[in-house]
Amino acid sequence: MNAIEPSVIRQIAAKKKPGSIDLGLGEPTLLPQQRFIEAAARWAAEHGVKYTVNAGDAGLRERIAAHYAYPSMSQARHVCVTTGSQEAVYIAIKTLLDPAKDELLVADPAFPAYAKMAQLEGVPCRRVHMRADEDFRYDVEAILDAVDRATRAIVIASPANPTGRVIREPDVRRLAAGLLARGGPPVWVLQDEIYRELTYVDDPGYVAQHYPYTVVANSISKSNALTGMRIGWLIAPDDAIEALNKTHAWVTSTASAFGQRVAYEIFGEPGALTEQSAWYRKQHARVTAALDASGLRYVPVDGAFYACVKLPRGNDSLAAALDLVENRGVVAIPGRIFGDNLEGWLRLSWVAPIEDFEEGLRRIAAL
Amino acid sequence: MNAIEPSVIRQIAAKKKPGSIDLGLGEPTLLPQQRFIEAAARWAAEHGVKYTVNAGDAGLRERIAAHYAYPSMSQARHVCVTTGSQEAVYIAIKTLLDPAKDELLVADPAFPAYAKMAQLEGVPCRRVHMRADEDFRYDVEAILDAVDRATRAIVIASPANPTGRVIREPDVRRLAAGLLARGGPPVWVLQDEIYRELTYVDDPGYVAQHYPYTVVANSISKSNALTGMRIGWLIAPDDAIEALNKTHAWVTSTASAFGQRVAYEIFGEPGALTEQSAWYRKQHARVTAALDASGLRYVPVDGAFYACVKLPRGNDSLAAALDLVENRGVVAIPGRIFGDNLEGWLRLSWVAPIEDFEEGLRRIAAL
Repeated sequence: MNAIEPSVIRQIAAKKKPGSIDLGLGEPTLLPQQRFIEAAARWAAEHGVKYTVNAGDAGLRERIAAHYAYPSMSQARHVCVTTGSQEAVYIAIKTLLDPAKDELLVADPAFPAYAKMAQLEGVPCRRVHMRADEDFRYDVEAILDAVDRATRAIVIASPANPTGRVIREPDVRRLAAGLLARGGPPVWVLQDEIYRELTYVDDPGYVAQHYPYTVVANSISKSNALTGMRIGWLIAPDDAIEALNKTHAWVTSTASAFGQRVAYEIFGEPGALTEQSAWYRKQHARVTAALDASGLRYVPVDGAFYACVKLPRGNDSLAAALDLVENRGVVAIPGRIFGDNLEGWLRLSWVAPIEDFEEGLRRIAAL
Repeated sequence: MNAIEPSVIRQIAAKKKPGSIDLGLGEPTLLPQQRFIEAAARWAAEHGVKYTVNAGDAGLRERIAAHYAYPSMSQARHVCVTTGSQEAVYIAIKTLLDPAKDELLVADPAFPAYAKMAQLEGVPCRRVHMRADEDFRYDVEAILDAVDRATRAIVIASPANPTGRVIREPDVRRLAAGLLARGGPPVWVLQDEIYRELTYVDDPGYVAQHYPYTVVANSISKSNALTGMRIGWLIAPDDAIEALNKTHAWVTSTASAFGQRVAYEIFGEPGALTEQSAWYRKQHARVTAALDASGLRYVPVDGAFYACVKLPRGNDSLAAALDLVENRGVVAIPGRIFGDNLEGWLRLSWVAPIEDFEEGLRRIAAL
């Protein structure tokens, strides 16, 4: 355990001074929809807050499965409700991969948690680098080329943290065809869809629509500003869901029944899952304008609430982030923690007021 | 993963018929104190429901640490808030034991989760049997004799599920002295205190009071009828807490912030943690009278809300439990799932109305 470093994101955040502009945040600044919390509190007054079955409340699982309606995983039995998408991804890595012989493939830049969780389980993790000169778009040919006999699972986060890139529908079809053409034991794709409701392109791809060996991770954390409610889930086909449920049962038993009830209310009201998306779409337009005006090089923001900008000079993203937080009143996350290929870049979140984002960009441009 | 059997407890519960007497329940039947849920909902309206730091809200951790005030683990930094005590125990086993060389020692009869979690982590698990002819009391000499060079941690659940036995203060002192006298790398004791507030003897022992290499697991699940809130914690000394926090951070990131707020309110109101204990003490007196009247052999109930009774004839507890649930309208848990030495016994919970418990005993006596 001691070999696993604490999160650099939290280390930088801890250096933040009062009055600083915080572009390091990894969670929404909107308030959640209080009506769902109050509905869950009324439910608790009547029913208590008891254990659900390990996989989660059947009514919630039915609503989740029906909402996404992925082929061969559209029934309640295909859903396992977890303590946020963190546990969902952990459970998937732990269950799908055998450290004695399997390897996890991660498309970089990527959120560090995937590789850290693999490390925690003793699973070797290989990186396939998406290219800076292609703005880190998901390069399906590079991913397929990187799959070898030991590769048992591939993580695709889309929309991606940190890059905000979204894998497109035609790319997903080519990925599915390429993996199916390989023969041999299936290679699983773990698509992390936690930013799904924050998508700003017309042709997002969902691997589960086209490829039967897909496990989907998602949550209400970002869509509904409920990061602290810790309700996520896995959606998986019959081949995998039973084993995933077993791991989940021994790791945490069940997710919060109170949080599950909040999610049940959200999935029961048409539009509630995307009610806050309108704010993000408006903010996205302002952010894109601010990025254009900044003179900084940036990665197109297809989804999520991040923007990656290139340092105006130099290539040391950690030094730049420390300079920004210590001397210039800006919290930004150094690109290097997301992969070697994002060294020289900063990840900025744009959930703060747009004026803060604009001022942050000016201070970065002056580095 | 496929090698790990699903829980037999849930299998038996699934066979329950309408109108049956359920003595299989593993959770309180009382309703939780709604005022704490409502206070948390009001807090959420103002503050949202955001991530806490990985180890949990500092205010809650401070209250928990101060409440138990264990020597060298009485500060906020000694507490890690988890998704129920299930994650707490999982994290402890995963962090304290190296599957390549360490062994977990479990004092049987024991809740099956400890051995299952060890199995999930590839950690060998050895059992030391408490003796039926001593009513399964914690036999510290037997435990110390069973410790060998590979033993890196011992699980002591007190009050115990399933036996209801409580390790006593003098026994804890002897255990601490024996372990300290061994020399060599320390052997950790993981005391599962989840039933702590339901204790009916005057001299319960807490290993953390006397032995520095102790990790304590607990939760608000049983004390406050909040099993579904999924708020538990570990209390551990400086030697261990940092590594425990790291594992927790990668497995679930944080426990529910909403649930943490509920716990914060409970720990902030003197007496709230034990408010429901009065009901259990009264029920315990009725249960003991019913057991005496039944003619069945039973294990003295020092704590928790279970009673173990010996089958009046035969020794096959699974066959008896199936006969009871299928033909006699009683859900009871077969002793064998808690260890070979509880074969021939049934575990009965007594959170149902006392008349149900009495009638259940009559039907068991008629087996």
